Amino acid sequence: MTPGSNGARPAAASPHVIALDAMGGDRAPGVVVEGAVDAARAHGLTVLLVGPRATIEAELARHNTTGINLEIVETDEVIAMNEQPARALRQKPRASLKLAIDLAAEGRAAAAYSAGNSGAVMAAALFAMRRLPGIERPAFGSPVPNSNGLTFLIDMGANAECKPVYLLQFAAMGVAYMRLAFGHDNPTVGLLSNGEEEEKGTPLVKDAHRLLKASGLNFAGNIEGKDVFAGTVDVAVADGFSGNVLLKAAEGTRAMIEDALRSELERSLRTRLGALLAMPAFRAMRRRFDPEEYGGAPVLGVNGVVLKGHGRSGPKAIRNGLRLAHDLAENGLIGAISREVERLTVNLESGAET
Amino acid sequence: MTPGSNGARPAAASPHVIALDAMGGDRAPGVVVEGAVDAARAHGLTVLLVGPRATIEAELARHNTTGINLEIVETDEVIAMNEQPARALRQKPRASLKLAIDLAAEGRAAAAYSAGNSGAVMAAALFAMRRLPGIERPAFGSPVPNSNGLTFLIDMGANAECKPVYLLQFAAMGVAYMRLAFGHDNPTVGLLSNGEEEEKGTPLVKDAHRLLKASGLNFAGNIEGKDVFAGTVDVAVADGFSGNVLLKAAEGTRAMIEDALRSELERSLRTRLGALLAMPAFRAMRRRFDPEEYGGAPVLGVNGVVLKGHGRSGPKAIRNGLRLAHDLAENGLIGAISREVERLTVNLESGAET
Repeated sequence: MTPGSNGARPAAASPHVIALDAMGGDRAPGVVVEGAVDAARAHGLTVLLVGPRATIEAELARHNTTGINLEIVETDEVIAMNEQPARALRQKPRASLKLAIDLAAEGRAAAAYSAGNSGAVMAAALFAMRRLPGIERPAFGSPVPNSNGLTFLIDMGANAECKPVYLLQFAAMGVAYMRLAFGHDNPTVGLLSNGEEEEKGTPLVKDAHRLLKASGLNFAGNIEGKDVFAGTVDVAVADGFSGNVLLKAAEGTRAMIEDALRSELERSLRTRLGALLAMPAFRAMRRRFDPEEYGGAPVLGVNGVVLKGHGRSGPKAIRNGLRLAHDLAENGLIGAISREVERLTVNLESGAET
Repeated sequence: MTPGSNGARPAAASPHVIALDAMGGDRAPGVVVEGAVDAARAHGLTVLLVGPRATIEAELARHNTTGINLEIVETDEVIAMNEQPARALRQKPRASLKLAIDLAAEGRAAAAYSAGNSGAVMAAALFAMRRLPGIERPAFGSPVPNSNGLTFLIDMGANAECKPVYLLQFAAMGVAYMRLAFGHDNPTVGLLSNGEEEEKGTPLVKDAHRLLKASGLNFAGNIEGKDVFAGTVDVAVADGFSGNVLLKAAEGTRAMIEDALRSELERSLRTRLGALLAMPAFRAMRRRFDPEEYGGAPVLGVNGVVLKGHGRSGPKAIRNGLRLAHDLAENGLIGAISREVERLTVNLESGAET
């Protein structure tokens, strides 16, 4: 069977079988294998560990693996974090990242997870799984912690250039994802712009605004970068360029504040003692804004379930990511996305008639 | 004399005379008048307070104004923060914000300052002062606190749509500004993109990258949103849309962290005591990242000196802004910008010959 050609669904694996790029991420393979062991034990998953057998076995030897289901899928090819994606995939057809995604595309796993090279994950998913029917461009979504919980940002960087209809479809995919992954009933959608007023923004944003207004989605209008963190909306829609700028700006700001706070607290005995007493609050903060809790960023709009973990993922992020991959497969992510985008088309068409 | 027509310099006022929109900002006129009184006393400035006479006089009555130079320029028209700029300026030709800028354009003040409606400040400056010769589009710059000091971001929101040559000129203006306002010798320039690699970004970014490489500026290549806060470069160049997203994302992240930290520290007696002891560190943090320290965001590329303060400016921000306006006028901002952009043209031309 040709994997995913013409958007045909591959034979489905049990949702308990997840393919994992054992070599993906800044701290691979150590923390990745550790996370896989934890996930297999805690959630009863079967994890297909893709990578060099000897390396993986050496890591497995550090853990108790009795009674859990882990299989190694052997390959020696690995794509580094900063390689140019298209070239890397051409030169390394058996790269661990690619093989893991191929396993999901072929129905030998229900989903794939990698904390490796984002561009290569997107390209490999698109190549092996193809777009879902009716989807113009797949996108990367990302849960972003905010003051009340989280906002789902889509696109976070796959499509630097967008057309208005892409943004509309990103919105529908984000809504389907928020419902499925986080149990939101009727998620609100905001369109990222440089001001809340309807007349603000680039021509892309203005046109997307009109489409979203007519879409039947729960559209709350334009939002500014700060609204994502205030939790004004559930789904924030952006082209991949500004979505990426937004995420990286938040990451940079958090790092800057943490560094500055640490150095200011070090300055005197008094503030060092204060820091010691305040430690539970600092720990709670870290948990609250820890991207590791949220399991990773889904590739949405392809005919398969693929999750991308943060490059700096630790074992907890890997474990949560594998569990989320299972949940998404079990709860029918692909069908949910397809239905939401179909409904959109119908709404737009009936909107055009009136 | 027609103000600023054909880019002609108006008769110069003493750099000590600054026109101030007394009604601009969320906390106007109270804190604005207070800041003006402080600036007049501390820096020997003559401040022209533009706004309703009775309102300003009532505010002045709260302060000791003996021996300092303050004048009221009367008008009853005021533009609100959220009014549509072009319409507001049409409907209120004597708006305080516009009159303050007109005073600078006509040479009755050396510079204008407003913490009011950003779009209206830019439009009024462009209308009254015109573009400097050779400048395609004026831009808003903004000092952004980072881990080592500050990065100057340009454009922060005036031009949602840009051409590559605009970004090139923003870079040159940013370099001139960093030299003049912050004493940097040879500021480095980074181009905001969705990845550091040269092949990343929109067509706009890729073309601007090529222009910057050939420009003779100290170009450090593409940067990501997080680099602005790590202080990787001195000047960060962006189109106004993503520049605005970046600034607002940072603002939202800071607010989110502050709120969360405050509520976590409130949770127990232990953490409340810790917070009390750690207070000097929190205060130092606030000072370190306080936008009020930096005096405001300049309109660059018009034939005059105009500074825009943050809407939430307090008296310190106003005082620092008035002082900065004076310094920029005294040190010849307009000439410095013109020379840097001229040099750019020459470099590009000689680059094209080789």
